[in-house]
Amino acid sequence: MTFELTVLGSSSALPTSTKFPSAQVLNVHERFFLIDCGEGTQMQLRKAKIKFGRIDHIFISHLHGDHVFGLFGLLSTYNLLGRKKKLHLYGHSQLNIIIDFYITHFAQDNAFSIEVHPLLERKYQKVYEDKVVEIFAFPLKHRVPTFGFLFMEKPRKLNLKKENIEKYGLNLNQILEIINGKDLVASSGEIIPFSELTIAPYKRRSFAYCSDTAVYNKITVYIEKVDLLYHEATFLEADKNLAKITGHSTALQAAKIALKANAGKLLIGHFSSRYKLKEDMLDEARQVFPETYEAEELKVFKVPLVRK
Amino acid sequence: MTFELTVLGSSSALPTSTKFPSAQVLNVHERFFLIDCGEGTQMQLRKAKIKFGRIDHIFISHLHGDHVFGLFGLLSTYNLLGRKKKLHLYGHSQLNIIIDFYITHFAQDNAFSIEVHPLLERKYQKVYEDKVVEIFAFPLKHRVPTFGFLFMEKPRKLNLKKENIEKYGLNLNQILEIINGKDLVASSGEIIPFSELTIAPYKRRSFAYCSDTAVYNKITVYIEKVDLLYHEATFLEADKNLAKITGHSTALQAAKIALKANAGKLLIGHFSSRYKLKEDMLDEARQVFPETYEAEELKVFKVPLVRK
Repeated sequence: MTFELTVLGSSSALPTSTKFPSAQVLNVHERFFLIDCGEGTQMQLRKAKIKFGRIDHIFISHLHGDHVFGLFGLLSTYNLLGRKKKLHLYGHSQLNIIIDFYITHFAQDNAFSIEVHPLLERKYQKVYEDKVVEIFAFPLKHRVPTFGFLFMEKPRKLNLKKENIEKYGLNLNQILEIINGKDLVASSGEIIPFSELTIAPYKRRSFAYCSDTAVYNKITVYIEKVDLLYHEATFLEADKNLAKITGHSTALQAAKIALKANAGKLLIGHFSSRYKLKEDMLDEARQVFPETYEAEELKVFKVPLVRK
Repeated sequence: MTFELTVLGSSSALPTSTKFPSAQVLNVHERFFLIDCGEGTQMQLRKAKIKFGRIDHIFISHLHGDHVFGLFGLLSTYNLLGRKKKLHLYGHSQLNIIIDFYITHFAQDNAFSIEVHPLLERKYQKVYEDKVVEIFAFPLKHRVPTFGFLFMEKPRKLNLKKENIEKYGLNLNQILEIINGKDLVASSGEIIPFSELTIAPYKRRSFAYCSDTAVYNKITVYIEKVDLLYHEATFLEADKNLAKITGHSTALQAAKIALKANAGKLLIGHFSSRYKLKEDMLDEARQVFPETYEAEELKVFKVPLVRK
């Protein structure tokens, strides 16, 4: 029951020889969700050995080039590989224009359907749900409409301690009631609390993606207690005016958001190429939030299972 | 007086973890010409340590995604880096639509001008000229209008053997006549052939880029005696029917073109990802044209100066 994030691209708008523009993949129980798709995403997917065909849902934070220019190549490759399955894209409504342009000029033979799910601006909204995961979008604060994404495992049921089936002669109906949190009235008339009969389930694991954004305290409500938080940190605090003007955050601001949201672990990235030492970014954030790590190309961050 | 080609991307339409889509840079006396611009070209330019700002002319063979999807990111980066110089693009007239789309949706703040020079279909044409180089476009044979490019140094003048200035008391006018190939009438009345008074100049060096194309013998007229020829070789001869249907060439066909054109050296690339052993492509081509090499990422091919 995997819950792990692979960073494909971590650079800000100016990539380098080793840093690719924004893209990450979250694996939730072998469902693969691609988040942003900067130039070179398909090559990074190959390097990370993530099978393209496993991705059916792509989440686009906003329509700046360094978050979407990899879509064209990825979609072309899907077509060449003979994809037939529908591909779902989630993003600003104008994403439709980009896809239409691509189809008209580069993929008139496109053989699979692409559905763009337009997100509502300024709303917290559920955008996807299946048996094991729910995905929410929420507003960020950037120069163009931008969305953060929260990926959350669904709640798990209590696990019955198996020895109790025989001990109390439980039938299926009783078992279902117990694992749904109802106390047992035994044949003796004794009331046995469900907590004695069961093992606590694993906690829901969660990941939030917040990029690009200026510091925006409102999001801490949406991402409260998130296990793994990716928050952009384009600048150092010394350049916080620049961050404000350009709609970005500083490493310190990202750390304060993580602290306020009571996050488990913070990943920072999208560093401006003006800074030569990424350690400066990490040091600044760790002063406030020690569990800060760099979102670096091809690094994998696992969220372990923990009982409640 | 450099004349060297750097391969940035050599893959066919499906890139891999190490192979990027088509892009090459030709350095002619420190003028840098970019030829095709597949996804990831800007990252490959960084790896090759070629300064972006030195490129003012980009040549696009055809409007398939694996030859143009890197334009968006490269143009964005130019803008972010503060480019002010005009950028010239050469390609099919519909390249204008792609650039207009990019400007409208991703670069309304674009601060440098981009001029698209539309190429004439089915014509051999000079598209660029400066003091040291002439560039020609010519038709290839693919599923969409596609252009090959020939880069040719301008002819050099003869070099006067300096001792003759004193020996014959030459004035500036006489010198100019001699190095333009006129025999000298000495004051004694004796006729001295210009070839005795001069050293032969270096030969014009040349490079031709032919991708994507089915085998097309007509091009051998345009590229006759080219020093360095890049010719696509998507398939092995065993799959020549597939090559024909898709508008591509086999390694053997590329070699035969090189032989017929009397080329100096042949580079092949754009190999289909179906073949695991690039040696098979090279072996096939070398049977006909021994001087065949693989156009591989970040490899540099220099054309040396040779006297006539």
